[in-house]
Amino acid sequence: MIDAPYVLFLGDAPDQLAAKVAQGIRDWRPESVVGQVRLPGCKADVGVPDVTLAEAREKGAKTLVIGVANRGGVISESWKAELHTALEQGFDLASGLHNLLRDEADLVRTAEAHGRRLFDVRVPNVEYPIGNGAPRSGKRCLAVGTDCSVGKMYTALAMEREMRARGMAATFRATGQTGILITGDGVPLDAVVADFMAGAVEWLSPENEPDHWDLIEGQGSLFHPSFSGVTMALIHGGQPDALILSHEPTRTHMRGLPHFGLPTLEAVRDQSLALARIVNPAAQVVAVSVNTKALGEDDALRCLEEIEGRIGLPAADPFRRGAGRLVDALAAV
Amino acid sequence: MIDAPYVLFLGDAPDQLAAKVAQGIRDWRPESVVGQVRLPGCKADVGVPDVTLAEAREKGAKTLVIGVANRGGVISESWKAELHTALEQGFDLASGLHNLLRDEADLVRTAEAHGRRLFDVRVPNVEYPIGNGAPRSGKRCLAVGTDCSVGKMYTALAMEREMRARGMAATFRATGQTGILITGDGVPLDAVVADFMAGAVEWLSPENEPDHWDLIEGQGSLFHPSFSGVTMALIHGGQPDALILSHEPTRTHMRGLPHFGLPTLEAVRDQSLALARIVNPAAQVVAVSVNTKALGEDDALRCLEEIEGRIGLPAADPFRRGAGRLVDALAAV
Repeated sequence: MIDAPYVLFLGDAPDQLAAKVAQGIRDWRPESVVGQVRLPGCKADVGVPDVTLAEAREKGAKTLVIGVANRGGVISESWKAELHTALEQGFDLASGLHNLLRDEADLVRTAEAHGRRLFDVRVPNVEYPIGNGAPRSGKRCLAVGTDCSVGKMYTALAMEREMRARGMAATFRATGQTGILITGDGVPLDAVVADFMAGAVEWLSPENEPDHWDLIEGQGSLFHPSFSGVTMALIHGGQPDALILSHEPTRTHMRGLPHFGLPTLEAVRDQSLALARIVNPAAQVVAVSVNTKALGEDDALRCLEEIEGRIGLPAADPFRRGAGRLVDALAAV
Repeated sequence: MIDAPYVLFLGDAPDQLAAKVAQGIRDWRPESVVGQVRLPGCKADVGVPDVTLAEAREKGAKTLVIGVANRGGVISESWKAELHTALEQGFDLASGLHNLLRDEADLVRTAEAHGRRLFDVRVPNVEYPIGNGAPRSGKRCLAVGTDCSVGKMYTALAMEREMRARGMAATFRATGQTGILITGDGVPLDAVVADFMAGAVEWLSPENEPDHWDLIEGQGSLFHPSFSGVTMALIHGGQPDALILSHEPTRTHMRGLPHFGLPTLEAVRDQSLALARIVNPAAQVVAVSVNTKALGEDDALRCLEEIEGRIGLPAADPFRRGAGRLVDALAAV
């Protein structure tokens, strides 16, 4: 568990997109953020106060989160002085980069000398159990996509926010690097060893109060041949009561695979439901979350109406209009 | 790639079952075995000549394979003297035990001093790619089970033997420890990191001659919630042309999960086929391999007839009568 609040390190981000992890934390956990640290030349700004490390400490920040990714996912030498200073001043460091903090001998030495922790959220730091498929109390929702990167994380976070606003008990359960940095906890599922994937998801979403919902972050797609095994483990380890179909209507082929067309929403619905019912016979598909950000307002509306009419389930775009209709569907389960 | 031929190390195996890895190698690759090395008190015998290490060297053996598992999968201290001697005499060592050879500092030192290799087949030693689902030339067969441990490896090995006897081009592709030790090569799929599972299977079964069959060793079951993600990766990474359903008819619940009943063969057929066709639209389910060893001859025959009548596919027990009918079904694809 990464200690909040955070100060967000934007480094020398060449553009706003490079700081999307910091932006995600700012958007979804603003109460965890005391400010941003930017180096000379930084072209990103996530809309929180610029602070020095000393100011961040005064405001209570406990962890400096590297919220920037440069090409190659490496820890830039130009960041090092600030990272060492942060450790010396009492911050833990957290990163989702490929290049691990723990592999940087100089950072490890400084962290040890000052009794600080280095969190590499890209790799597991827990010995997960083997899954057992036993029913668990509490309710679970999982977004399953027609493809990777269609908005599953956003959907779950938007639903969590809406549910909390309604006074419902809801917890986003992160399964990817960005989600883990946003919430400070989770399972980097794509880095878990095969035999322990389902067990890691069970561990992530333990027994809970009967009316509590876990919103488990989806990954991959049953129809994406590179990552379908990860999706399968989420469906069986997560044993969802409710499935949300996630879709991006302008995608012409599976992400990274030009030779693979997208499945229909109907195919994703039927396949996911059949597999989900192996562990949870009561599983239902309750709604469709459509990421229409590539469409204009009129086209988006038409798209949602078409899907809703065809599939016979509420179709909504949480990016555009909030997650209200998705949560209505969940509340009806 | 582990160099053959082998000498099989049975250590102080307390019973025949403890030497089942050695027995598997003896049964399926007798041409790779020059003999067995047994320590005082060994209660197993895999039916090959007892040899000293020196005799094994004279017969050309290049690798000493630890073909015995004791409780806990550890490398016993009582084996150490013989293992050191083997390294000194020029053997590589290969093991599928949980306790890795590479984690035994004394063995590592001796191996380094004598330029020998230590193969721990339980952990990957290759950086597998991410799968891309691109069609590959050659044909592929995968056994998919109603459960784990129903005879999928045996089925694939028996089919390979029968196909080679018929002059067909066929290669067993190992995905588990025992299979890797039998063939000297393969992917320990349950130990591969999630994101690379499908890519590892693609790597294992590359492009080949149009009439060549890879017989990919199946793992887990789509209906076993602990390991279904591994099975999914095999179906999508393996992109089988032919699926064989594997079943053990006396099993009353999923292995290790008393609260999970077995799926029907029909459910495994339909679910596996729908998922296989995502990557290979021509995929077919061609036969049923039934492990009837818990039944008497009459009951076994009735069981096979019942399944064959119900499913409408050839049903055969390769343990009992050979893999001829399964290969007939494959040859008809």
